[in-house]
Amino acid sequence: MANITLEQARQIIDAAIKKSESLGVKMNIAVVDSGTNLVAFNKMDDAWLGSIDISQKKARTARYFNMDTGIIGSLSQPGGSLYNIEHSNGGLITFPGGVVIKNRAGEIIGAIGVSGSTVEDDHAVADAGAGAIL
Amino acid sequence: MANITLEQARQIIDAAIKKSESLGVKMNIAVVDSGTNLVAFNKMDDAWLGSIDISQKKARTARYFNMDTGIIGSLSQPGGSLYNIEHSNGGLITFPGGVVIKNRAGEIIGAIGVSGSTVEDDHAVADAGAGAIL
Amino acid sequence: MANITLEQARQIIDAAIKKSESLGVKMNIAVVDSGTNLVAFNKMDDAWLGSIDISQKKARTARYFNMDTGIIGSLSQPGGSLYNIEHSNGGLITFPGGVVIKNRAGEIIGAIGVSGSTVEDDHAVADAGAGAIL
Amino acid sequence: MANITLEQARQIIDAAIKKSESLGVKMNIAVVDSGTNLVAFNKMDDAWLGSIDISQKKARTARYFNMDTGIIGSLSQPGGSLYNIEHSNGGLITFPGGVVIKNRAGEIIGAIGVSGSTVEDDHAVADAGAGAIL
Repeated sequence: MANITLEQARQIIDAAIKKSESLGVKMNIAVVDSGTNLVAFNKMDDAWLGSIDISQKKARTARYFNMDTGIIGSLSQPGGSLYNIEHSNGGLITFPGGVVIKNRAGEIIGAIGVSGSTVEDDHAVADAGAGAIL
Repeated sequence: MANITLEQARQIIDAAIKKSESLGVKMNIAVVDSGTNLVAFNKMDDAWLGSIDISQKKARTARYFNMDTGIIGSLSQPGGSLYNIEHSNGGLITFPGGVVIKNRAGEIIGAIGVSGSTVEDDHAVADAGAGAIL
Repeated sequence: MANITLEQARQIIDAAIKKSESLGVKMNIAVVDSGTNLVAFNKMDDAWLGSIDISQKKARTARYFNMDTGIIGSLSQPGGSLYNIEHSNGGLITFPGGVVIKNRAGEIIGAIGVSGSTVEDDHAVADAGAGAIL
Repeated sequence: MANITLEQARQIIDAAIKKSESLGVKMNIAVVDSGTNLVAFNKMDDAWLGSIDISQKKARTARYFNMDTGIIGSLSQPGGSLYNIEHSNGGLITFPGGVVIKNRAGEIIGAIGVSGSTVEDDHAVADAGAGAIL
């Protein structure tokens, strides 16, 4: 199983911070490995305190199911096939901002979770981070 | 109280894996006894990590109420009579994939929970597993 | 990062059950992967219900620190350097019965946790299980 | 309230990693702010997985009581005045490796927690980190 290194995780966080600054937003950014264990985390100054946990849950949620968190959220709505899946795994976050991280070979090596702004911004920053090692 | 044996639980898991392979899916499969205690669990290689917990919660949920998890889910929707029942028992999972296991005498001896694909596949594999001891 | 397969985990559990039978004891046996995620679990008939959780915590504890759980326990006694480490990671179990699993190349690929008898028996069964794939 | 910035937290983590490398150890390093909220975290490659949580608990424990974690541990032994204080706050870690961080004016602005080696090494690395902004 391929796994992310700290060097890669730091590179990803730096790219995510750069993207956040370009958007003028304050983010919490978490990177987990392929086993969903935390590898690196940064909270930008004045970013929401409640997003510290959310960013980590988004990262884990993305890796738990190998898909963007927003996709899971679209299936967990009332009437949806995965309604209330959020009660599993000690709490999932299923709105956008969690994205898997792949290496150049296309293997999943971890995931990034971003929280601190609109879900559109959160996803854009996560995407910029995940893309930084390709 | 009739109760499942390890031998039966392993037979059920093997049948569930066989069904999963025929469907081309990677599943997490949990079997609990009549007291909702875990008896056996298998995670197929590359199955979703988030489904380890979900499969166990599905098995317990099915035995908690002696019905398929999907039926409970149909009653826990907004406006439904069991709205947000998922908050009980340390977290329930109420979409399909959890099925009670009965012996030949029709007594409930445990339950199986399956997670790793669509809820239709999850339920089909759980059903194949539960049927293996009849 | 090398990681255990389900086939290896099942082989390990079978060896652990065989050892348990030779000792005349009833065990709960859990195998986790290199990321501490559960891969396989078996509860022998009439094994202690309280050991379902303990066996899983032993397996995770061994992998968390890459050592036998009993070694950690010898350091976590009153006055010891790791006193009350058990309060971390959602609860550790630090008496014997948790052992890391290595592949033939000597890489850690997971861990086994056994609970259901004396700690001497628990450790002996865990050791027999971990040794089965070498 | 004086509070640590992300820039300071990153500086502290880099100093802690440098010290770890000079000691030949693999550490998990967490920095919390004056409100005990996580600001930055780094897990060095191959550092213990169980120390991800411990390093964060050490940092919070140090800031909870504004003292080195080892001092609290000396008071929480059997018969001591703070016996079993570890049960509070979602779990404390009270052996060495958590140290408060002060600014040049002597105000506490956060805390660092380090875990991954002996408690002596853990404390030395935490100390090196905390001293980096003075």
